[in-house]
Amino acid sequence: MDREQSAGIGSVAIVGLGLIGGSMARDLAARGIRVFAWDRDNAALRAAMEQGIAQPVLWNEPLDAIVIALPVRAALEMLPRIALKMDGVRLIVDAGSTKRSIVHAAQALGIGERFVGSHPLAGDHGSGWNASRAGLFTGARVFLCPTPSTGGEAMALAKEMWTMLGARPEETDAEEHDRRLAWTSHLPHLLSFALGGALAGEGIAHGELGPGGRDVARLAGSSPEMWADIAADNADALVPALQAAEEKLRAIRHMVASGYHAQLRDVLADVRDWHGQWMGHD
Amino acid sequence: MDREQSAGIGSVAIVGLGLIGGSMARDLAARGIRVFAWDRDNAALRAAMEQGIAQPVLWNEPLDAIVIALPVRAALEMLPRIALKMDGVRLIVDAGSTKRSIVHAAQALGIGERFVGSHPLAGDHGSGWNASRAGLFTGARVFLCPTPSTGGEAMALAKEMWTMLGARPEETDAEEHDRRLAWTSHLPHLLSFALGGALAGEGIAHGELGPGGRDVARLAGSSPEMWADIAADNADALVPALQAAEEKLRAIRHMVASGYHAQLRDVLADVRDWHGQWMGHD
Repeated sequence: MDREQSAGIGSVAIVGLGLIGGSMARDLAARGIRVFAWDRDNAALRAAMEQGIAQPVLWNEPLDAIVIALPVRAALEMLPRIALKMDGVRLIVDAGSTKRSIVHAAQALGIGERFVGSHPLAGDHGSGWNASRAGLFTGARVFLCPTPSTGGEAMALAKEMWTMLGARPEETDAEEHDRRLAWTSHLPHLLSFALGGALAGEGIAHGELGPGGRDVARLAGSSPEMWADIAADNADALVPALQAAEEKLRAIRHMVASGYHAQLRDVLADVRDWHGQWMGHD
Repeated sequence: MDREQSAGIGSVAIVGLGLIGGSMARDLAARGIRVFAWDRDNAALRAAMEQGIAQPVLWNEPLDAIVIALPVRAALEMLPRIALKMDGVRLIVDAGSTKRSIVHAAQALGIGERFVGSHPLAGDHGSGWNASRAGLFTGARVFLCPTPSTGGEAMALAKEMWTMLGARPEETDAEEHDRRLAWTSHLPHLLSFALGGALAGEGIAHGELGPGGRDVARLAGSSPEMWADIAADNADALVPALQAAEEKLRAIRHMVASGYHAQLRDVLADVRDWHGQWMGHD
């Protein structure tokens, strides 16, 4: 990091005090950074104030950075309003699960130089201020996606902020990010929802699942609004992934129904090899 | 439990020292029960001997109970041979994930009075003696499925043995067991394999998954032989479950591809409600 360019972050405005924004607020405040915040839910803001974590943002404070920690669609709607409040601000990041649309929007709004699209891999199926906690980002990967115009100072500040939160920043292209995340994150979430939907349709309660089934169904407890947004925003990358999973499932069903025992075992063994190669990294 | 009928278990033969049989051997031996064992893998048997857990079974020992802890298909093949070694044996249980076929086989072999089909919900994606461990069954549900002829003593002894291992026995019908497990266990396993197959096909390594994706893919590390057996043995109950999941997945894909945002959100919200109602039980 270029220490000349980055004089560090002293004050941050966080827009959205959910799981991600709330957890950022807790950790940044604990590191001595002045945190200002906004949330559509007054209760979240009040809780953050009462716990001495954040003050309500009035947009006349001297801010080094702005964090938009809203669901994908809400972040896209908020960005033009934030773009009018950027006097003196050296960095603006989001924290959403898709990156192409927001990076494109920031560039189009003329704030591309100071914008760094961010995606911390630290969500879980909890949501809201009450799910937020200190240390959420410790050891988590965070993808940083520049706009075509992102400057060196903004990138350095973004890396500094996420590193301060304990995360491991990885710079990547927004296009490539969205394509890969369609497979590694969005597809597993929707598979988990599909399992839950099938079980619900059969009248089987979640409590009847064993430990293995609970693992696969865990993400079905995620926020429906958030995941409908992500799916809509990344539809072109996600549809082929959903299609591939359907095809695998149909092939497995065909083998089960037809009694192709050895063939099924070989297919499962190939997948197990894929999984096993990486078990040590779990 | 009827203490007159059940004089307790003093010695057990365990056929198969994998995750389930090995863990049973460890805990039964630790509770002072004499454990005799067989495994096709001499190394597993030798390890159990060296750790003072079990002696090789010679089939001339006085045995109170026999446990068949083999994969579904191997258990069905082994049962007729075990049926010839039942002198003085008061209980025989299996530990497989399907129950109709083995309960039916025990009845047909004329050992139905002493047979109790057992299915502990305590497997994980590990397998083999090296994955076995003390305390595997602590707090785990175990389904007990009688044959049409199972006697009171055998059922009492089965409950005693599983309770001694820390499990929570639940008596249930073999037919109903297999239908429900198709949905609550076998479907999630094959979904996890389908996800792994889709990711492998796209060239995406397991290590690229975030924490959520790893949960959904975890069961793809399970034993291919074991799960091909289970799927074959429970095909008639499993095929409709696989079909239902495919239909949910196809419906979700259609909504994503067509931009039906509100409809997708509502579908996901219904699943989240199904999941959320039971979150406290996790």
